[in-house]
Amino acid sequence: MQVYLDNNATTMCDPQVVEAMQPFFSELYGNPNSLHKYGTASHPALSRAIDQVYKGLNAADSDDIVFTSCATESNNWVLQSIFTDHIVNGDKDHIVTTEVEHPSILSTCKWLEEQGVKVTYLPVNEQGVVEAHTVKSFITEKTALVSVMWASNETGMINPIKEIGEICKEKGVRFHSDAVQAVGKIPVDLQDVHIDFISFSAHKFHGPKGVGALYIKDSQALTPLLHGGEQMGGRRSGTLNVPYIVGMGKAVELATTNIEEKMASIRAKRDHLEDEIIKLSNTFVVGDRENRTPNTILISIKGVEGEGMLWDLNNGQIGASTGSACASADLEANTVMLAIGADNELAHTGIRLSLSRFTTDEEVEYTIEHFKDAVHRLRAISSSFAKQKPTKGGEVQECELH
Amino acid sequence: MQVYLDNNATTMCDPQVVEAMQPFFSELYGNPNSLHKYGTASHPALSRAIDQVYKGLNAADSDDIVFTSCATESNNWVLQSIFTDHIVNGDKDHIVTTEVEHPSILSTCKWLEEQGVKVTYLPVNEQGVVEAHTVKSFITEKTALVSVMWASNETGMINPIKEIGEICKEKGVRFHSDAVQAVGKIPVDLQDVHIDFISFSAHKFHGPKGVGALYIKDSQALTPLLHGGEQMGGRRSGTLNVPYIVGMGKAVELATTNIEEKMASIRAKRDHLEDEIIKLSNTFVVGDRENRTPNTILISIKGVEGEGMLWDLNNGQIGASTGSACASADLEANTVMLAIGADNELAHTGIRLSLSRFTTDEEVEYTIEHFKDAVHRLRAISSSFAKQKPTKGGEVQECELH
Repeated sequence: MQVYLDNNATTMCDPQVVEAMQPFFSELYGNPNSLHKYGTASHPALSRAIDQVYKGLNAADSDDIVFTSCATESNNWVLQSIFTDHIVNGDKDHIVTTEVEHPSILSTCKWLEEQGVKVTYLPVNEQGVVEAHTVKSFITEKTALVSVMWASNETGMINPIKEIGEICKEKGVRFHSDAVQAVGKIPVDLQDVHIDFISFSAHKFHGPKGVGALYIKDSQALTPLLHGGEQMGGRRSGTLNVPYIVGMGKAVELATTNIEEKMASIRAKRDHLEDEIIKLSNTFVVGDRENRTPNTILISIKGVEGEGMLWDLNNGQIGASTGSACASADLEANTVMLAIGADNELAHTGIRLSLSRFTTDEEVEYTIEHFKDAVHRLRAISSSFAKQKPTKGGEVQECELH
Repeated sequence: MQVYLDNNATTMCDPQVVEAMQPFFSELYGNPNSLHKYGTASHPALSRAIDQVYKGLNAADSDDIVFTSCATESNNWVLQSIFTDHIVNGDKDHIVTTEVEHPSILSTCKWLEEQGVKVTYLPVNEQGVVEAHTVKSFITEKTALVSVMWASNETGMINPIKEIGEICKEKGVRFHSDAVQAVGKIPVDLQDVHIDFISFSAHKFHGPKGVGALYIKDSQALTPLLHGGEQMGGRRSGTLNVPYIVGMGKAVELATTNIEEKMASIRAKRDHLEDEIIKLSNTFVVGDRENRTPNTILISIKGVEGEGMLWDLNNGQIGASTGSACASADLEANTVMLAIGADNELAHTGIRLSLSRFTTDEEVEYTIEHFKDAVHRLRAISSSFAKQKPTKGGEVQECELH
């Protein structure tokens, strides 16, 4: 049996999405900017895709949703353009973000610091959540932007976006959220929150890799990152990737239709998997289930190196992760676990399991069995675990947190 | 019959390319940055794609070729990063480019001018070609970059890239070329020219829309445009678009293998089409055939508005263009025709026909017939043409140029 449990890294492209894209490769292949019938032939499909995305996120007609090549581009766009528009060519000098953002936010902020921008990296609480009052306390009159992820790629923990939005509105500060792990996983209602920009990416919810979007509230001004032709109303130049835009629309529709039912189904499988795994002694799951995306478990298994566990699971045809795929080349400690206060040893024991709507009960049962066996195998050869005194299964190891 | 003659705007995705991409949507869909087998399963195909691109362009092992989302991204990357690295954080203040570049160069340069950069827009000669001595005369000690397109999207005219490269080398100035209309259409041998950066895009040579690349000679330093995860050696972040990268590799291979034969076949069809069309009186083709990409004709038909011609051809199921699709939303005069010295009236009469390796002899014959009929139809109702005295067919109307 093959079990793919790394859906926070990327997902299988839904066969319905692949089917929807197919005609736009070799049949309806015109450039949508061309005036002839080969160009305009894709317009109805593009309009439908835009409608699907607006509907799925409940965006207002006055808002803009601009297709990009990925959420990394969307994140870079917001940060770099806020820098140009309000720091270089304005009177601000400060950006507020968090310690646990995706590398596309953190690396861009580091680069902006080299250009002279002041960046505050907010801490998270022991649940891995950014608290709204913390955001409030760091906003100054010079703050150009607050950027807080909607849900964590590593823990699945959901930040209080609505509260942070209210604070930003009250303070008159622009608010951006990297919503890559929220869109398609939990309800995102853009008319229910005050938020200026969100980034998201199709491949996180069974669309293709290589297409994302930036939501822009009230179509407010924002210098483009990609200058050029007048595609996307002059906001994002480059020939439209028609197949992927069509695919993204379909993927949003599939993910957001009856999302509560889909969430309940995934949550039931996730909870069962989690319940069984934490029966193992000295295991620790990050964050309350109620405030977590329904597909994610970040579990620490004392005495078991994350990479060793990953290798054993891989041998059992189970794909998991020790954290963000965008940072997986280096075998460092899980930065989110460090941020929530885990010590360095514990932060090396994190394993993330992330389910999808395609995960079956059989796959969950198979994973439970293999996972338990793997932990026994690896603990048997663990030098660090042998020295530890076992404790009750599932109990949070407070002593490991500081 | 349907005849697509707008291959400089975009091309049909080759069915072999579509086939090569197919497994990477719903079968081998892992994130290549993930450590498990679902992630590494795509590595051989990615390696092959990279090899195909290096081979197709004869890049050296010491060079970098970085996949991007399109040539617009590649162009923005080079210009914006040269600005950061050598103007903001260096002692340069000047960029040299041409009047006839693609909007992704021209718009970025206009934006850089707003940021204080000095930009020289070089003129072209009556052939639409940038002369090497002109480039030389405008380079100063403060020049950070020379950016000259390899071949024109509008005319197909090929610039003296080798000579310009030698000048830039001699002057110690970085040299970039937007090679979107060269790669896959004419031989591009990166070890035969001195060039620091070239941009290109798969959808111009029967690959998918939404993937391009930037070539970087000797893997020299260049600040990323997209900061984030360590994809592409830290040069371009964002989850790899595996299907499209695989597709781009295949498309380069198909386009560049036996390119001379392919060129000869397309050229023969193009020349026949051109020969027949210029038999019409008062027609004028821009640029010598010998120095033009073998698929392109930019023809001016006196007394016939480009848009009217486009519409008539469209009714006959023929897709053509009045110029760049990236600037086709506005019905303005063809800027390249203005740049080569055509008056405003003539610049409104340009029609671009661009063939591909999929263009058949039957399609060419059908186009010749329809094109001639269209010209007669439209001239019969043309108020401007009725006043003109007809001249010998095919003769260049020198009087129209100034």
